[in-house]
Amino acid sequence: MKNLIVGQSGGPTSVINSSLAGVIDYAISCGEIKEIYGMINGIEGLLEENYINLGNIFRHMPSELNRLKVTPAMYLGSCRYKLTGDKDELKKVVEILQKLDVGYFVYIGGNDSMDTVKKLSDYTIENGIDIKVVGVPKTIDNDLMGIDHSPGFGSAAKYIASCVREVAYDTSIYSIKSVHIIEAMGRNAGWVTAASALARQEDMIAPHLIYLPEIAFSVEKFVQDVRDKLEQYNSIIVVVSEGIRDENGEYICAKNDKKDIFGHAQLSGTGEYLKSVVEKEIGCKVRSLEPSVIQRSAGHISSLTDVEEAFNLGGVAVDAAMKGKSGIFSTIRRISNKPYTIEYTTEDVAVVANREKKVPRSWINKDGNDVTDEMIAYIRPLIEGVVQTPYRNGLPDYIDIRHLDVKKQNYKNPED
Amino acid sequence: MKNLIVGQSGGPTSVINSSLAGVIDYAISCGEIKEIYGMINGIEGLLEENYINLGNIFRHMPSELNRLKVTPAMYLGSCRYKLTGDKDELKKVVEILQKLDVGYFVYIGGNDSMDTVKKLSDYTIENGIDIKVVGVPKTIDNDLMGIDHSPGFGSAAKYIASCVREVAYDTSIYSIKSVHIIEAMGRNAGWVTAASALARQEDMIAPHLIYLPEIAFSVEKFVQDVRDKLEQYNSIIVVVSEGIRDENGEYICAKNDKKDIFGHAQLSGTGEYLKSVVEKEIGCKVRSLEPSVIQRSAGHISSLTDVEEAFNLGGVAVDAAMKGKSGIFSTIRRISNKPYTIEYTTEDVAVVANREKKVPRSWINKDGNDVTDEMIAYIRPLIEGVVQTPYRNGLPDYIDIRHLDVKKQNYKNPED
Repeated sequence: MKNLIVGQSGGPTSVINSSLAGVIDYAISCGEIKEIYGMINGIEGLLEENYINLGNIFRHMPSELNRLKVTPAMYLGSCRYKLTGDKDELKKVVEILQKLDVGYFVYIGGNDSMDTVKKLSDYTIENGIDIKVVGVPKTIDNDLMGIDHSPGFGSAAKYIASCVREVAYDTSIYSIKSVHIIEAMGRNAGWVTAASALARQEDMIAPHLIYLPEIAFSVEKFVQDVRDKLEQYNSIIVVVSEGIRDENGEYICAKNDKKDIFGHAQLSGTGEYLKSVVEKEIGCKVRSLEPSVIQRSAGHISSLTDVEEAFNLGGVAVDAAMKGKSGIFSTIRRISNKPYTIEYTTEDVAVVANREKKVPRSWINKDGNDVTDEMIAYIRPLIEGVVQTPYRNGLPDYIDIRHLDVKKQNYKNPED
Repeated sequence: MKNLIVGQSGGPTSVINSSLAGVIDYAISCGEIKEIYGMINGIEGLLEENYINLGNIFRHMPSELNRLKVTPAMYLGSCRYKLTGDKDELKKVVEILQKLDVGYFVYIGGNDSMDTVKKLSDYTIENGIDIKVVGVPKTIDNDLMGIDHSPGFGSAAKYIASCVREVAYDTSIYSIKSVHIIEAMGRNAGWVTAASALARQEDMIAPHLIYLPEIAFSVEKFVQDVRDKLEQYNSIIVVVSEGIRDENGEYICAKNDKKDIFGHAQLSGTGEYLKSVVEKEIGCKVRSLEPSVIQRSAGHISSLTDVEEAFNLGGVAVDAAMKGKSGIFSTIRRISNKPYTIEYTTEDVAVVANREKKVPRSWINKDGNDVTDEMIAYIRPLIEGVVQTPYRNGLPDYIDIRHLDVKKQNYKNPED
């Protein structure tokens, strides 16, 4: 029996730990894996031989897997490091893995992380090394190729749509004109921004305007759009992607020639810039809201569909590795929207590495200030289901992550 | 049998509608009230005879009261208008109430709104008019006198503590130094900011630093505090009140001599300013998060304790009015922290009108950068309990508020 090692990489989502729980659960229950290791801080940590024994933790506390499954961010920590492809570095990774008798290497991450999966897998195959290298996809941005939708996106979508609904209640109470601008994450792909459209139901019109980075943004047209909506409604909600750009490809937030107190240009603040524009051009009450990292860490309002799919994708990847596959990632194909049905399968990691899936033009309305019904039908099933978040003393009671201080405290794994 | 009219005023919280549901529930079930009217947009709307018949809506759909009870913001809309005390205006209000055969006037609001209760109650008593005028307290700020804690505060406290917990998970994933600054509401009173301390449990140290507006803020000391914490921890979370001021009483956000693109001074942004300071003085990764109105509208994570207390306070106020009291508001006295027990009673509205309850110095630590255990023991029970938010299509399914378009559409109440 061989050992397995798993790592997490890239930016957090609400459900990356659900994929980790899926990997651990499968590895424990299949009965064909001996030790289950976790890299601390991804491949960067592994290069420094930083890891913990997950089997020792979770075999003895199986109920903890349920808590792990609903805890946001990354139990194992993360890194932004990609393998360079340098042979010496790849050799070093393999030597560390061989020392641990690892037969299965599982990496949970986005398109950058899948590049690391590809490089390591190519190297092991070329050199006849018996280590299967597989990926589990994740990102709130939903910009991964080769998968119907990315784990993490459904929860971010549910958060942003809920946020719009709740802010719409807050903004409806005064009979004065007001504009609220909500800035959503997604620098190059507008999927999360688009998900705000789900807030609409028969009794709710918000969001009134939606701007994605896939369409060149015109400040003049935006002002006219806002004016038009304010003629119909007292308070309007506008959702913009942080990454909207003008027709010359310049970020709108870069127009914000705001300097901080020390004279540095401030690049953040697409919403803040548009707030200034509305204040000047229209003159009504305006607020800019930027949920920022809250939209990707709000585990208490994760999508149950997302949590379950992320969990299953963890298991599917381990299963594939054990069946001898390498250089693949676990993926989802959609069979139908209504009823929502999918199938799990695997795909060559070359399909996803270093690429981005943008919103198709046909899913954005003609005016470029809203999305189509097709977009809504695509996202709708992904936000379904309410997670049973554990609460203690009135607050979400997530799994303990104090082991992430491993490096700093020169902590030694007690099993070593 | 007389009629009752109820209104909502001031800024929103997650549980003002719970108080409204309590008023309606009591008024329906007591069997001694005929019509139940709701002012649209508070006293300002009433002066324009803008109201709806709540009895006609909720007597026929009792289950809707449960949905109302968990819907954030204000079903009846709000206003920022206070009665001036002008006799003609008071006379006009009374004439409108008499035309509707109103015997009980219930106003849900903060210290400004309680001033309106006082003025109207004084006027009716002086003039021998048989209308009982009572208040139901609310505010996220917890700055009301004459009550142990304000309805709305417990839910804002639960939000901000949950937010700190979740952001702490998000920020723990990289092994680099980082500072996250969360700006909480409460311009003059630091209660909501203080509530962030509840995020701590045996496995969580965040928030590392807490700054309330009750203590003069020194930027130099803040930088030293952050430096000290960064020696102990990789990623630290600082929670600041939007209203912190320096020793001269100048708002810290006013130091932010940032101008918007049109050269106007920007007064918002305490967190943004401190972000610039940390970037310059320390140079590590910094983010500023401002949950803004999201912290008062996040009904899906309301405190059940808060929801139930707000509901009961609605009933207590109506009960008092029916027993002949006027010029009072319903209130809470705490009997013990552990087990948490309270009693409901009423108090002269003069105690609460136009005053503010600040955090006592003894509940802030000596260094002025944290709160004491006494503060935590006081807030802890207020965030307990999870509300069963109704969900539909994956999103919170709150009550329909389309009637708030009444004015704009010249909507006529079908019952008139």
